[in-house]
Amino acid sequence: MSKSNPDALVVFTPSGKRGRFPVGTPLLEAARYLNVDIDSVCGGRGICGRCQILVSEGEFAKFGITSTAQSLEPITAPELKYAERRELKPGRRLSCHTKVLQDIVVDVPAESQVHHQMVRKGAEHHDIELNPLVHLYYVEVQEPDMHDPSGDLRRLLNALEYDWQLTELDYDVALLPQLQTVLREGKWSATVAVRQGKEVVAVWPGFHEGVYGIAVDVGSTTVAAHLCDLTSGDVKASAGVMNPQIRFGEDLMSRVSYVMMNPGGEVSMTNAVRESLNGLARRLAEEAGCELTDILEITFVANPVMHHLLMGINPVELGGAPFALATDMAINTLARDMDIRLNPQARAYLLPCIAGHVGADTAGMVLAEEPYNHDEMTLLVDVGTNAEIVLGNRHRLVACSSPTGPAFEGAQISAGQRAAAGAIERIRIDPETLEPRYRVIGCDLWSDEPGFAEATAETGITGICGSGIIEVVAEMYLAGIINQDGVVDGSLAAKSSRIVADGRTFSYEILPPTKERSAIRIMQNDVRAIQLAKAALYAGIKLLMSYQGVEAVDRIRFAGAFGSHIDVKYAMVLGLIPDCDLQQVSSAGNAAGTGARIALLDETARQRIESVVRDIEKIETAVEPAFQDHFVNAMAFPNKVDAFPNLSQVVNLPAAKEVVAEDSAGEGRRRRRRR
Amino acid sequence: MSKSNPDALVVFTPSGKRGRFPVGTPLLEAARYLNVDIDSVCGGRGICGRCQILVSEGEFAKFGITSTAQSLEPITAPELKYAERRELKPGRRLSCHTKVLQDIVVDVPAESQVHHQMVRKGAEHHDIELNPLVHLYYVEVQEPDMHDPSGDLRRLLNALEYDWQLTELDYDVALLPQLQTVLREGKWSATVAVRQGKEVVAVWPGFHEGVYGIAVDVGSTTVAAHLCDLTSGDVKASAGVMNPQIRFGEDLMSRVSYVMMNPGGEVSMTNAVRESLNGLARRLAEEAGCELTDILEITFVANPVMHHLLMGINPVELGGAPFALATDMAINTLARDMDIRLNPQARAYLLPCIAGHVGADTAGMVLAEEPYNHDEMTLLVDVGTNAEIVLGNRHRLVACSSPTGPAFEGAQISAGQRAAAGAIERIRIDPETLEPRYRVIGCDLWSDEPGFAEATAETGITGICGSGIIEVVAEMYLAGIINQDGVVDGSLAAKSSRIVADGRTFSYEILPPTKERSAIRIMQNDVRAIQLAKAALYAGIKLLMSYQGVEAVDRIRFAGAFGSHIDVKYAMVLGLIPDCDLQQVSSAGNAAGTGARIALLDETARQRIESVVRDIEKIETAVEPAFQDHFVNAMAFPNKVDAFPNLSQVVNLPAAKEVVAEDSAGEGRRRRRRR
Repeated sequence: MSKSNPDALVVFTPSGKRGRFPVGTPLLEAARYLNVDIDSVCGGRGICGRCQILVSEGEFAKFGITSTAQSLEPITAPELKYAERRELKPGRRLSCHTKVLQDIVVDVPAESQVHHQMVRKGAEHHDIELNPLVHLYYVEVQEPDMHDPSGDLRRLLNALEYDWQLTELDYDVALLPQLQTVLREGKWSATVAVRQGKEVVAVWPGFHEGVYGIAVDVGSTTVAAHLCDLTSGDVKASAGVMNPQIRFGEDLMSRVSYVMMNPGGEVSMTNAVRESLNGLARRLAEEAGCELTDILEITFVANPVMHHLLMGINPVELGGAPFALATDMAINTLARDMDIRLNPQARAYLLPCIAGHVGADTAGMVLAEEPYNHDEMTLLVDVGTNAEIVLGNRHRLVACSSPTGPAFEGAQISAGQRAAAGAIERIRIDPETLEPRYRVIGCDLWSDEPGFAEATAETGITGICGSGIIEVVAEMYLAGIINQDGVVDGSLAAKSSRIVADGRTFSYEILPPTKERSAIRIMQNDVRAIQLAKAALYAGIKLLMSYQGVEAVDRIRFAGAFGSHIDVKYAMVLGLIPDCDLQQVSSAGNAAGTGARIALLDETARQRIESVVRDIEKIETAVEPAFQDHFVNAMAFPNKVDAFPNLSQVVNLPAAKEVVAEDSAGEGRRRRRRR
Repeated sequence: MSKSNPDALVVFTPSGKRGRFPVGTPLLEAARYLNVDIDSVCGGRGICGRCQILVSEGEFAKFGITSTAQSLEPITAPELKYAERRELKPGRRLSCHTKVLQDIVVDVPAESQVHHQMVRKGAEHHDIELNPLVHLYYVEVQEPDMHDPSGDLRRLLNALEYDWQLTELDYDVALLPQLQTVLREGKWSATVAVRQGKEVVAVWPGFHEGVYGIAVDVGSTTVAAHLCDLTSGDVKASAGVMNPQIRFGEDLMSRVSYVMMNPGGEVSMTNAVRESLNGLARRLAEEAGCELTDILEITFVANPVMHHLLMGINPVELGGAPFALATDMAINTLARDMDIRLNPQARAYLLPCIAGHVGADTAGMVLAEEPYNHDEMTLLVDVGTNAEIVLGNRHRLVACSSPTGPAFEGAQISAGQRAAAGAIERIRIDPETLEPRYRVIGCDLWSDEPGFAEATAETGITGICGSGIIEVVAEMYLAGIINQDGVVDGSLAAKSSRIVADGRTFSYEILPPTKERSAIRIMQNDVRAIQLAKAALYAGIKLLMSYQGVEAVDRIRFAGAFGSHIDVKYAMVLGLIPDCDLQQVSSAGNAAGTGARIALLDETARQRIESVVRDIEKIETAVEPAFQDHFVNAMAFPNKVDAFPNLSQVVNLPAAKEVVAEDSAGEGRRRRRRR
């Protein structure tokens, strides 16, 4: 900068970067010089509007500046043209066409930055850092010239190098057949999507906006997907479908069995889930108003069996010891190599699996919850047919999977049902009268509130869903209907007609039979099923706690649908989870899906989760002798008030009806094992 | 090496590398230590036999050694086992199991070296350097362990790292579905093909031998392919088929026209040629006795239109100015992305095109002939419907394409035909009597030799093929039947009945009409067609010579079928090529195909030809004013003895019948241009 020219101080916020520039310098140029993160697709041609800035007006004592809109040259023709075509909010300017006249403070809004934070909502815990894998570049390409023959591709690459300093770019040959048309249609201008600064992945004629990605959670029951704008990070559309593999088997093991019985059967299941992904992608694109070819990335989380079936890998090895994964590494491939029809160059990324029972969905949960960034001993739990459990902090993470079975989902429970209108989801039992009051899905009223009968007349009351089962068993325990060993106290039949004899055991009847359905009862076997499930979960947690050498955890996060619906207090009453400050027990929402979304939007997250997963210690419960001990010990419900200080503050734990000495507990354990 | 242990001097030939090693050191280990190039697939397990060496027996004064078979430990059990299973020639040992006892000289035969020279035969000019892209590695993989869960892939990669120091290997996800089966079938041993030390491309159970590649020359008329052993470089099978695109158009321009008339028609042509490639690959694999999955590489040369159609690119841009290629860069892709069914991870490589009319076939010719490695000014010519011409040496290469038309191939010549049994291919005309004698394809006798009539009775004499046309026109010129301007001298009709009036012009009759066919005559128009073709070729050559600033060339190589069949002397008589020492004019065989084969076998060749092609100066004849001048000047046949010193030594050039002064030549030129 020559001394003789007048110059001006330019301060960019929020970065605080500043410098003196000759009067007349475009702000974008000043920003580039100072390494201020301002986006641009068109390279300063006033087309893309990505480089918008806001003039900060006022006196800025700390910078010694009075900054006004007059510190800049008046609005230019290209800006007016852009404002006509799109919108330029008051105070906004296109930094590429805005020249500095005097000292000024310029604010770069988040959406004008390539890298920025996205504030996450609701159950989500951390903000998402936006580090897009794909960036758009507008270029004007030299026309072919007989005197200097060279290919369209080379001239395109030359333009990218000249205008954007992108060198040694790779490309996919699938681009070649369209390149000629694109360049001629765009009159030798084009917008190029470049991945990680290394690879040309798409080319559109002229100026093009909008590149998208899809984050998918492939669950055994449902496949859920979000379509995101890769530039802003915004979710533009969401959709879910039933996993069509259900027709081959309701749960994971039955799908593995299907392949065992029908060798090669994995092909049908792979095709089925991929076809449903194609349907999802079309729906998402339609809802977001974009083309499938604008979708350049897709990321996946899935449990190991879903992961293998998605990739066309036979899952039979996962059905028996040693539960060997075909790969525990993250997978990078072309979406088209998975028969997923997005942009032909769209890339697919699968988060790494952790172990044979602990999948990429758990990796997604870890990525979303970031226990590795915290000092607190954090317990992450995702409950399904298996519970995936991760425990740890920045120093060490351990993980396992525990075979809870489907009881928590309402399966194998006599009155159990899927969460649907008419299902009991909340329940309270009066400890004196043993009378229940409850709420059903689809109605906001409790059963003892006026209007309840009318409100539920249409659906009826049809059964109990997963979260209702947790509550009813917990309430039965708190009301003294079952003891800490889970035995229904038959002597109460004398006190209440709700205690009903069922052969040699007793049940608790919530509703008598009607013409449409049997009685809704909690039978002794239902309590046993919940005990087995909760013992498995708790044993897994205790196993990890013993690996970590801790007696308590600082924070508990429940991921998945189960976690969103249960009342954590009841989870603790049942002994699903160890005692913990209840303020520190919460739902993580669909943490696995959030993990997929983070991997979609943040390039750095992929490497991070791969490295974290490599370091997670994997515990296989099936070969841990301690697991069996923990399991047997966890069958009983919590009763020692001093062992559950946090829980004891919110509920009255029943006293132990019989005090079991350490020795006889050990004896009991040995008895069970012999069975 | 400890001083206390006795040691021995080991000398490896032909490298001459030497070192002292403790008695008992295996030779392979000594070779590794000295960086002697000895192959091994099994990593010293005595399975693969690739590390064979030969003991050099005798006194080696220069090394101060007496070397005998007794300088090594006696043959071991694994070597005997290998010899039973395969063959171990006398004197050969497996270096991995052969321990040194005393000083010794050990010869490493070429086939035991990873990198070695292959001597090329016949028309081929240079040896091929063998630098295989793919190498096989035998590994024993750790079995899965529940206590330390990790994927099959990771354990495979660990084995490759541990045994072979191959780190950070990439892989294709298409491998995953087969990996489980392969590892279990091989009882946790496998042979892995690794490409360029960077990427796992194939995995076979247990020990596997044999990886292959295919080099393809996609011509407008025929598609020819060689299947090569990637380890030895040997051609294991060869096959050719008609290019099925012929049904869309006989020549290049008619195929381009087909797409112009039928938008999207390139798809059918792409599918057709790819399907024929799949057929070729199956035939080659069958002939060589290998599986398609053993084929890991395929390379291609093709002219620009064939190149674009092979890649699914619309070739219409190549049909008119500015003749823009979609890409002039080499193409690297997966064969499966071209719908070619080899090993699913097989890679395809297309040599770079040079310009819109100068294709990857010319690049192949340049790679095979290596003019860039020579001081001599070398002229490379590949004659087809266009002639591709490259001129230069290590300092500079220039290239162009010249529109010769199909006359040299016998098309558009009245008695012309494809080279097939019954076609005249050689001819001599007695300058006194004007009587011809000739030979036809399928018979070794000349027409004036006894038995000729009987030998050709079955096929008859049906027409003249391309090389025959060159000879007959040249002989007509040497016999004075045509003058240097190509006019048939009608006055000779008085002397010989072979000079026949055809309207206002005259023809030379070789054979009178029969019941089966018309007379075989060379008509005035035929001579004109040859003149136009040869003028185009010569003008292209002159243009390049003027770019190079040379008046003569040192060496001429004719590539392709045309070059293999013509007598170079006649080519020079006609003025197809400039005067040159006839010893230095020769056929290069199918140089383009050889280029494809080199790119298949020598990893370094790919980078080399890409770099050479970038530096070749491309001349577009269509926009070169000088080309038109050269063209007009080249219409006449050579007659100035002093301008053709080399040619004058072998033939008597006819004197000019009329001396054309410079001015009137210029006048003639202007006249022609006005037409």
